[in-house]
Amino acid sequence: MNFTSDNCYGASPTILEAIAAANSGSAASYGDDAVTARLQTRFAEIFEHDVAVFPVISGTAANALSLSTLAPPHGAIVCHAQSHIAVDECSAVEQFTHGARLIGLDTPDGKLTPGAIETALSPIQKGAVHHAQPASVSLTQSTEFGTVYRPEEAAAIARVAHARAMKVHLDGARFANAVSFLSCAPADITWRAGVDVMSFGATKNGAVGAEAVIFFDRALVHDFEYRRKKSGHLMSKMRFVSAQLEAYLVNGLWLRNAAFANQSAARLAAGLRDVSGIEIAYPVEANAIFAQVPDRIVENLRKAGAHFYDWAPPRNGKTLIRLVTSFATPEEDVANFVAVARG
Amino acid sequence: MNFTSDNCYGASPTILEAIAAANSGSAASYGDDAVTARLQTRFAEIFEHDVAVFPVISGTAANALSLSTLAPPHGAIVCHAQSHIAVDECSAVEQFTHGARLIGLDTPDGKLTPGAIETALSPIQKGAVHHAQPASVSLTQSTEFGTVYRPEEAAAIARVAHARAMKVHLDGARFANAVSFLSCAPADITWRAGVDVMSFGATKNGAVGAEAVIFFDRALVHDFEYRRKKSGHLMSKMRFVSAQLEAYLVNGLWLRNAAFANQSAARLAAGLRDVSGIEIAYPVEANAIFAQVPDRIVENLRKAGAHFYDWAPPRNGKTLIRLVTSFATPEEDVANFVAVARG
Amino acid sequence: MNFTSDNCYGASPTILEAIAAANSGSAASYGDDAVTARLQTRFAEIFEHDVAVFPVISGTAANALSLSTLAPPHGAIVCHAQSHIAVDECSAVEQFTHGARLIGLDTPDGKLTPGAIETALSPIQKGAVHHAQPASVSLTQSTEFGTVYRPEEAAAIARVAHARAMKVHLDGARFANAVSFLSCAPADITWRAGVDVMSFGATKNGAVGAEAVIFFDRALVHDFEYRRKKSGHLMSKMRFVSAQLEAYLVNGLWLRNAAFANQSAARLAAGLRDVSGIEIAYPVEANAIFAQVPDRIVENLRKAGAHFYDWAPPRNGKTLIRLVTSFATPEEDVANFVAVARG
Amino acid sequence: MNFTSDNCYGASPTILEAIAAANSGSAASYGDDAVTARLQTRFAEIFEHDVAVFPVISGTAANALSLSTLAPPHGAIVCHAQSHIAVDECSAVEQFTHGARLIGLDTPDGKLTPGAIETALSPIQKGAVHHAQPASVSLTQSTEFGTVYRPEEAAAIARVAHARAMKVHLDGARFANAVSFLSCAPADITWRAGVDVMSFGATKNGAVGAEAVIFFDRALVHDFEYRRKKSGHLMSKMRFVSAQLEAYLVNGLWLRNAAFANQSAARLAAGLRDVSGIEIAYPVEANAIFAQVPDRIVENLRKAGAHFYDWAPPRNGKTLIRLVTSFATPEEDVANFVAVARG
Repeated sequence: MNFTSDNCYGASPTILEAIAAANSGSAASYGDDAVTARLQTRFAEIFEHDVAVFPVISGTAANALSLSTLAPPHGAIVCHAQSHIAVDECSAVEQFTHGARLIGLDTPDGKLTPGAIETALSPIQKGAVHHAQPASVSLTQSTEFGTVYRPEEAAAIARVAHARAMKVHLDGARFANAVSFLSCAPADITWRAGVDVMSFGATKNGAVGAEAVIFFDRALVHDFEYRRKKSGHLMSKMRFVSAQLEAYLVNGLWLRNAAFANQSAARLAAGLRDVSGIEIAYPVEANAIFAQVPDRIVENLRKAGAHFYDWAPPRNGKTLIRLVTSFATPEEDVANFVAVARG
Repeated sequence: MNFTSDNCYGASPTILEAIAAANSGSAASYGDDAVTARLQTRFAEIFEHDVAVFPVISGTAANALSLSTLAPPHGAIVCHAQSHIAVDECSAVEQFTHGARLIGLDTPDGKLTPGAIETALSPIQKGAVHHAQPASVSLTQSTEFGTVYRPEEAAAIARVAHARAMKVHLDGARFANAVSFLSCAPADITWRAGVDVMSFGATKNGAVGAEAVIFFDRALVHDFEYRRKKSGHLMSKMRFVSAQLEAYLVNGLWLRNAAFANQSAARLAAGLRDVSGIEIAYPVEANAIFAQVPDRIVENLRKAGAHFYDWAPPRNGKTLIRLVTSFATPEEDVANFVAVARG
Repeated sequence: MNFTSDNCYGASPTILEAIAAANSGSAASYGDDAVTARLQTRFAEIFEHDVAVFPVISGTAANALSLSTLAPPHGAIVCHAQSHIAVDECSAVEQFTHGARLIGLDTPDGKLTPGAIETALSPIQKGAVHHAQPASVSLTQSTEFGTVYRPEEAAAIARVAHARAMKVHLDGARFANAVSFLSCAPADITWRAGVDVMSFGATKNGAVGAEAVIFFDRALVHDFEYRRKKSGHLMSKMRFVSAQLEAYLVNGLWLRNAAFANQSAARLAAGLRDVSGIEIAYPVEANAIFAQVPDRIVENLRKAGAHFYDWAPPRNGKTLIRLVTSFATPEEDVANFVAVARG
Repeated sequence: MNFTSDNCYGASPTILEAIAAANSGSAASYGDDAVTARLQTRFAEIFEHDVAVFPVISGTAANALSLSTLAPPHGAIVCHAQSHIAVDECSAVEQFTHGARLIGLDTPDGKLTPGAIETALSPIQKGAVHHAQPASVSLTQSTEFGTVYRPEEAAAIARVAHARAMKVHLDGARFANAVSFLSCAPADITWRAGVDVMSFGATKNGAVGAEAVIFFDRALVHDFEYRRKKSGHLMSKMRFVSAQLEAYLVNGLWLRNAAFANQSAARLAAGLRDVSGIEIAYPVEANAIFAQVPDRIVENLRKAGAHFYDWAPPRNGKTLIRLVTSFATPEEDVANFVAVARG
């Protein structure tokens, strides 16, 4: 029963087959291959918009490279205080931007709001060299708390950002889970809502190791390709990364995988809600559940072999735990977990 | 007939099978998995020495991360003027080290010599803050010119470096080709010869995308793991990279692949030597051939569908071309190429 | 009536004389001169402790260079959310450290507390590569709010820091104002309280442009001299900077200047406290006053030629303004300002 | 007899007076003062061209900041192999540019040539992400070897640079010496010859510590002011730096000082040429002399109290020494030095 993270699960068989299928003959290296070329079209179809797509192999790389094209060294990036870039990437953004600053905002459900952003930015004087200049807002979709921005919520934030000439980045490490939840067009929650650049994640949702930086505005690409190379993220045999992304998109694998993970989370949450003493902390909209669980139940779950994170130290007899489901979480693990919790 | 680079070929089937085999159940992410743990032992056996092994996914990452642990921002790194770090990695080392400097030395066959290093370092005052301080020597094995350092050559360079408290790095993107040529123990040409840290390449020789940074002295690891994370090179599903490296080492696949590539190069060189007007520029010791080829023959080869790099612009009716063979170069391509060259 | 900042005033005549006096004959450049050598002894006397002293020319340089020796690129630095390094130095620390992160804590009076620090650090896992690792606490003395840490307050913070193997930095841009207020030995509020490295400011208190980085533990100096050179902060004619610092210390000029500035602030605060509708926001312990002032009075003051910052936008008919006095603030300006405020 | 460097001498009295004169009343800080404003006009007159002028306090800062605006992290900068940025600034340029690379060219007299630049750049593929992209050429005027570019020489280099969309930087640490030698308009050897940005030095020629970055094209200023602030080079009391530059320009002080230094060098060279066994290595056009001097004479000079650098280790009984004269080198020191050399 592994609910530690979606990245603890492996890869979809379809994706492994695509890697094998890409392994024929010789091909131009460093992304000049046919699979990578096809990706551009494929993503353009998915997003109903011209895009520039750059495969990389980690979410940290996708985020840090994206943001380094949006924020100069003297820039500031607004994000959630608990976002991945703020707490889980060892200040990669600061390094890739050569010294830009994150402004982490704390909101109860992991979602930024126009008001919170405006409050945070109001003391910063535009053009004053003493102050890091607001350059970008980075949203996470679905959020670290398993919640999902509605298109109009994202659009309202983007309006605030664009009004200040800031660009909007979307960390879509779990983008598929958000789209599956919203049942919307990918465009609705990205460029139509004002997103300029996104990190499109596949790794957590069934790929071996494949993410893509997607620019909805080619003018922003600027020196991205040099940045990718200079940071060691231009794969020589890139066709093997691109093949994963292609297989991920074909026939809706990405949305099927995400739907499965979301449904597992929904069932798990439903089961836990019925357990006396357990409280679900945030709306369960994607594949993450945060729950206040009596310490006795936490202990029983661990004894039964369940793996998951304590999100905060125990307090008043309860612990806030995080449970993440994936495209491959066994159904019986969900059932078992609930059964053990019930006691 | 693709002789552009060894990275234009795909992956060994064994390695694809290993990726598929690694795809069972859940596993701890970010390198805390069983496959990555086994790698440490496997490399220790191969090198007959305790080692600390860190998988990454590109040679540029391996080199830049290695060197950033050896050279401070005010450091200097001695390398060949035509080495990969000097000409093909878009100054990644300068970025990862936060501003260290490469001192590129030109020697005729791609190999550094103790004398060339001493001459280059003699004007630099030790401890003078005005001068970037020599911190590391980086060797490439096999070299960019297809030549191979003998153990005693590497050892002589390491002595010069260590006498100045500099560390020795080895860029082993084509390490297997060198070991195959030398028929020596991997230890002989690494730690026994004074190498402190190496980039161990697998991608060019049959992996999908897998390199390893190997420390022969754990004291040098220092903050390497933070550097890997902060640069986006800590893969969440690292077992899939480690599995490639494991399969690469098991049953001598790495040396079999390299031997095949080297033999292809030897046959190709032998064939070309017989062609009137063609001159082989450097000893063909690994899997690269540099040849002065009459422009008419170059044209015929291209017409016949051969792919390769011009290494310099045409001069006096001839062009210096580079041909690289790989573990998967079809034997008939070698034969064909020679046949076309013969005319 | 210029109360904008203490750096709007010029230099003490004694300091200008010292610059002129240093201008005789030739001298070794880059700090190898006699004046700079004498400084080491002079500071050691002042601090009753062996010290390593490095003159620089700006407070931002002093802070960023100090902290870059204390925090690695994967480090985090705890500071006040309103500290100079957090809001007024355009993320210089992030640049000089090559990507470390500031953790800004908000406390009502500009002073950090052990509790606030412990709360902020508790979620960060030691040794986890995902998290920037706490490396330093940076105190400001006197603070941005014109308050002053008592020796025991600083010591309590240093104990928390040292218990976590973090180093303590002190931004002493207005150190003289703090020492003058405390009437303590400089040692009491620095190394005896656990400070490891400090930025010793002179510019704001009567120098032309002279600060010093002071290490109380020579082991921490490490590669500081390379960092200073590499960032362009090693002055060739350093004797002229050192001469300013020397004159600043001789005969207690630094404390006389600070006492004058503090007394001016005290008089100003006393005068304003009597004005109906004006509230002094923080204890006035050094040379800065924050006051809530009715907008009508703010307007009158500006009309009368007073210069000062609005620290926040007007609210409920009042504005929080900041007034800073200096060693050279004319006494009549203080009197005038109060008179105009009284109306 | 100090011929070590021109920065071993102090400041012109006029410049000290200007500092004192700037010390009246309060003034806006960080460059918003009247003296700094006047500088813009003054430099525009001197250069007969609209300019944007930014005072800083060291030549390293001027060079590294200038070049960081001209070269991106993936850029390359062509310079002389013995230029100050290449050998005496501890790789500051690499740090300020966040990883750009210097391409140091060796020419016999310290001057770059169009041919040398074209040869060096020819193997670098434009737009190939593997290669650092040529972004700037940096000339030094007068050069490290005491030679001076003629306007047509600089213009020929600038044409090569501009044809490749590279910008031209001029390191003018000793610009006054060059202008004095050429007896040309400052414009002739800067913007009229194609220079885009320059480091205008005053420190070596009589200032306490004052340099200026001068943009001849305001479009290039871009984010320079943030870079200056973020690197700690925005002086709070900038009026004291600007006052030095103003005094330096008024009444031709800069050219008088330079003429004196150049004449001293000319007399010294003339005297040494007559000494049997001494050979002057390069044309003596500014204030530096390189001479091959018999070791016996070198020894006598040192015994007599002369200070100077050995530029290379002794060879064949002679040593290449460097002698630098300044605006304040005593005439008798020149005479004495020659007398001792004569024996």
